[in-house]
Amino acid sequence: MAIDEDVGSGDVTTLSVIPAEQQGRAVVFGREPFVLSGSKPFRTIFELLDAEVRIDCLFSDGEMIEPNISVFSIEGRVRTLLTGERTALNFAQRLCGVATLTRKMADAISGTRCQLLDTRKTTPLWRSLEKEAVRHGGGRNHRFGLADGILIKDNHIAAAGGINESVRRARENAPHTLRVEIEVENLDQLNEAIAAGADIVLLDNFTLEKLKQAVAIGKGRVLLEASGGVNLQTVRAIAETGVDFVSCGALTHSARAIDLTMEFS
Amino acid sequence: MAIDEDVGSGDVTTLSVIPAEQQGRAVVFGREPFVLSGSKPFRTIFELLDAEVRIDCLFSDGEMIEPNISVFSIEGRVRTLLTGERTALNFAQRLCGVATLTRKMADAISGTRCQLLDTRKTTPLWRSLEKEAVRHGGGRNHRFGLADGILIKDNHIAAAGGINESVRRARENAPHTLRVEIEVENLDQLNEAIAAGADIVLLDNFTLEKLKQAVAIGKGRVLLEASGGVNLQTVRAIAETGVDFVSCGALTHSARAIDLTMEFS
Amino acid sequence: MAIDEDVGSGDVTTLSVIPAEQQGRAVVFGREPFVLSGSKPFRTIFELLDAEVRIDCLFSDGEMIEPNISVFSIEGRVRTLLTGERTALNFAQRLCGVATLTRKMADAISGTRCQLLDTRKTTPLWRSLEKEAVRHGGGRNHRFGLADGILIKDNHIAAAGGINESVRRARENAPHTLRVEIEVENLDQLNEAIAAGADIVLLDNFTLEKLKQAVAIGKGRVLLEASGGVNLQTVRAIAETGVDFVSCGALTHSARAIDLTMEFS
Amino acid sequence: MAIDEDVGSGDVTTLSVIPAEQQGRAVVFGREPFVLSGSKPFRTIFELLDAEVRIDCLFSDGEMIEPNISVFSIEGRVRTLLTGERTALNFAQRLCGVATLTRKMADAISGTRCQLLDTRKTTPLWRSLEKEAVRHGGGRNHRFGLADGILIKDNHIAAAGGINESVRRARENAPHTLRVEIEVENLDQLNEAIAAGADIVLLDNFTLEKLKQAVAIGKGRVLLEASGGVNLQTVRAIAETGVDFVSCGALTHSARAIDLTMEFS
Amino acid sequence: MAIDEDVGSGDVTTLSVIPAEQQGRAVVFGREPFVLSGSKPFRTIFELLDAEVRIDCLFSDGEMIEPNISVFSIEGRVRTLLTGERTALNFAQRLCGVATLTRKMADAISGTRCQLLDTRKTTPLWRSLEKEAVRHGGGRNHRFGLADGILIKDNHIAAAGGINESVRRARENAPHTLRVEIEVENLDQLNEAIAAGADIVLLDNFTLEKLKQAVAIGKGRVLLEASGGVNLQTVRAIAETGVDFVSCGALTHSARAIDLTMEFS
Amino acid sequence: MAIDEDVGSGDVTTLSVIPAEQQGRAVVFGREPFVLSGSKPFRTIFELLDAEVRIDCLFSDGEMIEPNISVFSIEGRVRTLLTGERTALNFAQRLCGVATLTRKMADAISGTRCQLLDTRKTTPLWRSLEKEAVRHGGGRNHRFGLADGILIKDNHIAAAGGINESVRRARENAPHTLRVEIEVENLDQLNEAIAAGADIVLLDNFTLEKLKQAVAIGKGRVLLEASGGVNLQTVRAIAETGVDFVSCGALTHSARAIDLTMEFS
Repeated sequence: MAIDEDVGSGDVTTLSVIPAEQQGRAVVFGREPFVLSGSKPFRTIFELLDAEVRIDCLFSDGEMIEPNISVFSIEGRVRTLLTGERTALNFAQRLCGVATLTRKMADAISGTRCQLLDTRKTTPLWRSLEKEAVRHGGGRNHRFGLADGILIKDNHIAAAGGINESVRRARENAPHTLRVEIEVENLDQLNEAIAAGADIVLLDNFTLEKLKQAVAIGKGRVLLEASGGVNLQTVRAIAETGVDFVSCGALTHSARAIDLTMEFS
Repeated sequence: MAIDEDVGSGDVTTLSVIPAEQQGRAVVFGREPFVLSGSKPFRTIFELLDAEVRIDCLFSDGEMIEPNISVFSIEGRVRTLLTGERTALNFAQRLCGVATLTRKMADAISGTRCQLLDTRKTTPLWRSLEKEAVRHGGGRNHRFGLADGILIKDNHIAAAGGINESVRRARENAPHTLRVEIEVENLDQLNEAIAAGADIVLLDNFTLEKLKQAVAIGKGRVLLEASGGVNLQTVRAIAETGVDFVSCGALTHSARAIDLTMEFS
Repeated sequence: MAIDEDVGSGDVTTLSVIPAEQQGRAVVFGREPFVLSGSKPFRTIFELLDAEVRIDCLFSDGEMIEPNISVFSIEGRVRTLLTGERTALNFAQRLCGVATLTRKMADAISGTRCQLLDTRKTTPLWRSLEKEAVRHGGGRNHRFGLADGILIKDNHIAAAGGINESVRRARENAPHTLRVEIEVENLDQLNEAIAAGADIVLLDNFTLEKLKQAVAIGKGRVLLEASGGVNLQTVRAIAETGVDFVSCGALTHSARAIDLTMEFS
Repeated sequence: MAIDEDVGSGDVTTLSVIPAEQQGRAVVFGREPFVLSGSKPFRTIFELLDAEVRIDCLFSDGEMIEPNISVFSIEGRVRTLLTGERTALNFAQRLCGVATLTRKMADAISGTRCQLLDTRKTTPLWRSLEKEAVRHGGGRNHRFGLADGILIKDNHIAAAGGINESVRRARENAPHTLRVEIEVENLDQLNEAIAAGADIVLLDNFTLEKLKQAVAIGKGRVLLEASGGVNLQTVRAIAETGVDFVSCGALTHSARAIDLTMEFS
Repeated sequence: MAIDEDVGSGDVTTLSVIPAEQQGRAVVFGREPFVLSGSKPFRTIFELLDAEVRIDCLFSDGEMIEPNISVFSIEGRVRTLLTGERTALNFAQRLCGVATLTRKMADAISGTRCQLLDTRKTTPLWRSLEKEAVRHGGGRNHRFGLADGILIKDNHIAAAGGINESVRRARENAPHTLRVEIEVENLDQLNEAIAAGADIVLLDNFTLEKLKQAVAIGKGRVLLEASGGVNLQTVRAIAETGVDFVSCGALTHSARAIDLTMEFS
Repeated sequence: MAIDEDVGSGDVTTLSVIPAEQQGRAVVFGREPFVLSGSKPFRTIFELLDAEVRIDCLFSDGEMIEPNISVFSIEGRVRTLLTGERTALNFAQRLCGVATLTRKMADAISGTRCQLLDTRKTTPLWRSLEKEAVRHGGGRNHRFGLADGILIKDNHIAAAGGINESVRRARENAPHTLRVEIEVENLDQLNEAIAAGADIVLLDNFTLEKLKQAVAIGKGRVLLEASGGVNLQTVRAIAETGVDFVSCGALTHSARAIDLTMEFS
């Protein structure tokens, strides 16, 4: 579908300027250091255009790559290389961006026992790829979608009439294979959530001080996840409070694209 | 498809915690100033989930909106509101991000005769929405895809054996309804492109000084488009050189998502 | 798709025998008592064929209905009624069959604290409808698919090198929002599973005696689910052993279709 | 689609417990005697998951197979085997069930000149596979859908104003490549159908005595098909009345699934 | 899909030249007499583009219409009218062409007892519409596709080893609801086909003299269909030989498009 | 989709008459001279039916082929050959028809400097194939659809308030990569179009005399395209007036199918 979106009824420039059977070779490299992700969709774009193109990926997803080092080598019809270039790079530049930002965040908390999680704040239609990029960057995935995890948020609590009632209903009605996670905004709610039998508590926008108190209260009784205001500057201090997880939407919704270039040789 | 991606076999939290017929009302606002875009997909997500939900959009796409001002008002089943929230916001936050960055760039060159263009560096499967967001931000669209514009790039020139030959082939083989645009890297190539009969010349990574010289040479004979190193700091000076267009990939590939919140009332 | 499958290039009998605009009315009833399920797909078949048909469903899904009582009343073009009849009944007869068998099983264990679960042994492409029919019959759903629950089976244990290692890997690698369920074949394995930190243990093909011992060991430390050899004759005794859940594949893979008839009036 | 239904965003158990490249081998066998059907969809499920898996089917569709005899042998990544197991078995267990029931019915009438037919009472979206399973069991297919056969039923007759008029309209308006079959409820109607020029008469719910009289009247003038109350106990006596065909909806709508097991070796 | 094919990423002419809300009214008429067909797809094109457009069709499919008489009246956004014009006309001009040619052929044989049939020589993806256009023109449809009629052709006969064997196999293996039609090339084969028990015989490329002899032999024993060399000049004489049907591929594969014009008022 | 349309639930004739594994060989030839087109879809039909069939195409698309010369040679299962025959020929006969008519028109103007163009009057869903057939015949393609060319027609001009205003709006709002083409009906409009800055002018239904005057006025200032009343009799004289292009809708909407035959050997 991405190819159709870009190529439509045909790449008029390439079809008119390049002979059908002219062969060529190109390499792809970054102009900045980055963590590789998206090598599969990159490859697939070219293979869908032309079964005879040969693509070598010289690194594995998840590897840190220096600038000006060839990552992909592509050989085949020049037409295929030129027509697929932009769409393939559009996939890779975005996914490498997600993986690279994740790596920076993961490195920032390395040595603590806290794990870095993504969220559902992903680009629609890209969730599977972006969550994979998070793993390539060294993060761990939170639930994939609404079907594979219970997360009771403030709006659920308000509509259901309180923490205790929300947890009770989830226990009674949701599949017994799922843990119950609930979002709280202060320490009183944390205590209420533990009493109600939650398995995981998401501490939303807690200060460092409050996070430490939450850990003192909840550690060992529930899993604790910190969220809100998480960035490269704040993440280490949050992790050091002792929470089990820190989750960060920016990993997927605001990662900057990596500057990748394809060059004929 | 975006709903399927998130909801999958069902929103287990909402289904287990919220009664089927409970009604509610929520509003959506930003936590920072932004230009609205994506109100149609935002609305569509909820309407696909539940034909009876009522959504009012209180602004038009393209309007600048202050923080904490309600943009959408949504009434209906609480289940619908909670299940659709994340996917709808994922659309809106990204498209508002593109429109807002475009507005800043467009404002930066206002008063010059230069027009701001996007590129094909869009998120795969999102091109149509992102290009619309560029228009909402006050930018103009370059070609939609490979079928509706001829742009001969450095790799085409190299493979075809030179500027003159590339332009000749495009004239001969491409539909006569399309102009011929060609990318050049220096003033000699600009002269060669003009001599070859190009209609539009893309000046790639020219310094300001070279851009001015290019304008002196080409103005009135071809349309001139500057590209490369375009950002909020540089765009005004580039525009003031007298080029007809400035194009910028970051508008679509690296816009930061706007922080939007949905709150029940 | 189901309509295409049956109607193909057209219902030649009805098109040749019945005039286009002839109006009629029909009712649908069972020839045996049954629990209603599938009223939505039943209705949808006719509405997709002809937007002007009027369908009343006189009962709600989940209700027990006596023989020869009208369940649906359908008015509109006779052509529509005749062309949709078989496909609509094929949906309803199967789903009512699942709901009715589930109701019998659920009734058989009523008064115990054990809950009746379905399995993934569903008809491919029908899972969502069949699992809904189980709920209409009074059963509870086990996980919907492979993505929303961890169930480590004998083949997983063998391939991973034991219960302890399997549970450890699941804890480390699977989303923290999911509980860990593991299938065991004897009491030693049950003890091992509890020690490994499993949340739920599936007791596969245990005798009643062994089930009682398992309950003595595991109750309160893990959730216990009995499976294997579950039918109308055995289910009550199994439930009375004190297990939390009993799961039964026959609910969805071997329910007999209900004999439903559509009659013109 | 069946794989998507079960696997969704991923088989979390297998992905977390089994290493990506671990190889294994498994066999599939029944726990009861059965007629094989569905070997193609069984194979396809695994091949769609993983092009490198090797599947040997040791019997042909239509063969009777004893319990505990290996039918399929599957080698490849353990992940593939575990992820595909349930969906592949769900296909095979149902289709083998249809073929096995058909075989029993077909055997019951062997030696007579009567042929066993299925009906359109199939599982929606499964018609093609279930009708093939009927052939594997030794039955013959009635029409595939509404487009490839004329069958005028009681509701058609009532709406069209009688047998004679119904047959006349079918002859005039339906493709001349189709025979005209009509359903009758008594001997008077049979005589009327013959007089009207029907090619085939479906005798609905006739007693054995009435069937014999119908044969005496119609044999050689029309093809005769008996239907209603057909089961393993009654089918031989019905066949011995001399009708050309006996049709039975239970073959496809109420066959019990065969108990198939996949075991690693 | 037809709209996507033409409109692609957008109708740049109309979007740039016509304001979004400008209203207008247009009519469609022919520049030659024609039989109307395709009014439904014509209407659907506009309705898919814009739910608010109003389309009146002033005639019914199957009516003969004089030149310069308005057939459709369309009111709504000018953008919608201009963007849908070509695709809607492309449907109608072709289907009216088929209906008009069929009408001429049907008129040519009026008064005889012979019926005019189409063939499977239709435009791929258009069969249903083209066969409907044949009915609008006064023709009758042969089988819709390969599933709803048996037609044994010369290549089948050769591969099966003769007429008698071909008919025998068809009788034994094909659904009993279908008649057996067979193509023959001379009178000997006709006799053989009748002896083998065929229901319908297609006389391929017979001279008028041979057709008359075939009628003398076969009339009342089988249905006779003439085919080959059928055109406006020859069809009446063929029909007068007494054959039951005459079939003509040119009705659908070589009908000339009707010259239709849409004009704003 | 075309195969589904024809084969539906199965080719009952072939399945009942021809054994599954019988092998055969057939050739395809024309009964009249023609230009080949459509060899790819012809091949694809058989390959989709049966991966083991072997198809040799003995000519290239665009070659002129004499009657009774084998064009395709097909070997494999007789069932595959018979089932695919009609659909494959339906593709080829139509596309060869388009290419052959185009060749005749192109030959008629050979030696002039005028180029032959197609239009958007194509068969819906066939545009890409038909436009390729035009190229095989020696014609050149006009725009593919509404997105890749600006063509302001009489209805646009009327709705926008004149030629000058239409061209101005197109320049301002449409992508700068597209030329502006406008349709005119007389010499005054031609002058107005040139003054307004159009790049291409379509001269609609001009007499030869007026075409010559138009060339005298516009040659070298705009590209000139003649349209209306273009056929084999008129095309040479039109081309000799000196226009740059002549466009003809009949190439695609009214080409007669070529008579192709498949014969077993």
